[in-house]
Amino acid sequence: MAGRRRQAGVTMQDVAAIAGVSIKTVSNVINGYPYIRPGTKERVEAAIEQLGYRVNLSARNLRQGRTGMIGLAVPELSLPYFAELADSVIRAAERRGVIVLIEQTNASRERELEVLHGQRRHVTDGLIFSPLALGTEDRAAFAVDFPMVLLGERIFGGPADHVTMSNVEAARAATRHLLETGRRRIALIGSHEGETVGSAALRQRGYEQALAEAGLPVDPALLGEAGLWHRSTGAEAMARMLDAGTEVDAVFGLNDALAIGALHVLHARGVTVPDEVAVIGFDDIEDAAYASPPLSSVAPGREQIAQTAVDLLLARIAGTAPDEHVEVITDFAVVPRESTVGAVRPAAAASPVVA
Amino acid sequence: MAGRRRQAGVTMQDVAAIAGVSIKTVSNVINGYPYIRPGTKERVEAAIEQLGYRVNLSARNLRQGRTGMIGLAVPELSLPYFAELADSVIRAAERRGVIVLIEQTNASRERELEVLHGQRRHVTDGLIFSPLALGTEDRAAFAVDFPMVLLGERIFGGPADHVTMSNVEAARAATRHLLETGRRRIALIGSHEGETVGSAALRQRGYEQALAEAGLPVDPALLGEAGLWHRSTGAEAMARMLDAGTEVDAVFGLNDALAIGALHVLHARGVTVPDEVAVIGFDDIEDAAYASPPLSSVAPGREQIAQTAVDLLLARIAGTAPDEHVEVITDFAVVPRESTVGAVRPAAAASPVVA
Repeated sequence: MAGRRRQAGVTMQDVAAIAGVSIKTVSNVINGYPYIRPGTKERVEAAIEQLGYRVNLSARNLRQGRTGMIGLAVPELSLPYFAELADSVIRAAERRGVIVLIEQTNASRERELEVLHGQRRHVTDGLIFSPLALGTEDRAAFAVDFPMVLLGERIFGGPADHVTMSNVEAARAATRHLLETGRRRIALIGSHEGETVGSAALRQRGYEQALAEAGLPVDPALLGEAGLWHRSTGAEAMARMLDAGTEVDAVFGLNDALAIGALHVLHARGVTVPDEVAVIGFDDIEDAAYASPPLSSVAPGREQIAQTAVDLLLARIAGTAPDEHVEVITDFAVVPRESTVGAVRPAAAASPVVA
Repeated sequence: MAGRRRQAGVTMQDVAAIAGVSIKTVSNVINGYPYIRPGTKERVEAAIEQLGYRVNLSARNLRQGRTGMIGLAVPELSLPYFAELADSVIRAAERRGVIVLIEQTNASRERELEVLHGQRRHVTDGLIFSPLALGTEDRAAFAVDFPMVLLGERIFGGPADHVTMSNVEAARAATRHLLETGRRRIALIGSHEGETVGSAALRQRGYEQALAEAGLPVDPALLGEAGLWHRSTGAEAMARMLDAGTEVDAVFGLNDALAIGALHVLHARGVTVPDEVAVIGFDDIEDAAYASPPLSSVAPGREQIAQTAVDLLLARIAGTAPDEHVEVITDFAVVPRESTVGAVRPAAAASPVVA
């Protein structure tokens, strides 16, 4: 069972001869195809076992100088937004017959440089990269000799093709939605004081624009700092704000994880949502729809981002993309749910989920 | 900016000569190191731009015939358990100086075979693989000539090293926890009727053992079928059971996603948790702690699984693992939260989160 050693020179022919079947049948057994005659599979497996045969991967040559694989580098898979983005990219690539290898950078500068210049760029035809540590000041590091599509809000103006979302406009729409439900003391959770680039700065700008349109000032007491945008940091920012006695009638979490952290603290303090405090997030991750109460959010077109990034990258790899780098900005939609607009109870026997 | 063409033969020396700096300085700029004298970085960037220099990755040779990369293949990253497992494996590998390339199989048989026999096995030194479609009947497909550690409950008895959890015992403990809080009508959400292997069968066995110990029968009306273990399928199973008029005072979701789906339906129907129905999940994903109410769960030792799998694989790659294949079963712990034991409200000013 264990500790078998590969025997040099054993081929699929040898296995076929011992098992008394064709090479095609050996290949079918190894590749797990169904519809193999009873007894045949067992004979082939016995021959494989007896000879210590192993599939010789290194004999397979790459066609066309391409690997059929693309890289996707994201900060953290434990953040649902990036896990769901990865899932969407994988499915979009699969529809085009391409495999995705995923790398996680932990938002570390060193790891992000390694993504750009490390040896695993040998094995992919191109890269979809959502940097979080590197930014506009690192333009030289983005000078790479392989096709690349950038995601996110860290670097603009073209070292590569770029797919991004309408951060300012989407955040303004989320804030307007809270204002339209009569809220006036809207906490912003996820602020990054002093930053002028990146998602936090852009989304906060949208929040401030919506307040200005409504004739409301920006109250610094309502700006909740959170470094990384996790559930835990959202909970901490919400708790600090409540502990400080800040009056709040609504919360805009700059992503859904922060908003879910805020919901957690409101629940623990016995604050009712949305009666006392309305809450909206950003990203529309699957968690949002299943939160209790279901969390309103902004859907930033994740499927469109993934599909566009894959299409752009494959066009760049195939040499059919335009000479100039392309910047694509995806659509968004506010998704109102119970956390801002209250419960819409179904009739007793019907379920909103199964319907 | 765009459409630049790489000039053949341009070297780092050329860039250094044009910029009037050392090769080391060019390398530092390209690799994004801080502490470069003002002006120097701009000169190097201008020279890179002028010459069309690109880092030549293909010139870097692999050392020792190893790539320093391992593969991790999981069914779905959009399932938080696998996203968090991937995160844990990446961090464990990073502590050992190894990069992880992640692949998603979508629980497809074809994709799982491709993981075992596809060309990307050229580029990794070994594989950590959590199969969901392949099983014990596919032993031949697991005959590979590279180091591999299996995760999960699909295949036992040794085609490779194997790290798994105490499914039966952990599920029994979760069910006992519900029985100890006085529950008697415990719905099981996530059942796979007719299956005798895999997580569903093992966890259901634990549930049945706990009921038997308490002298309770297994009521088929309380077994909620769910194919894939998603939030949506958990919600559907819960809704079907309630629609059928089945009396329920507790729910055991065979994973947290199923339990969160059930919580969602209970919330929508106005059923209070845990007063009317107690709910426990399995996996202890981060979502569980942040659910409203916070979801009790079983922590299956995810960090230990990741660390053990990485250590075993690296030992196998280095040739220091035992000849016989190893099977490691990790510890578990029931984590009681509000969804089974009710609220423990903090003092007015204190926060359970910040504390």
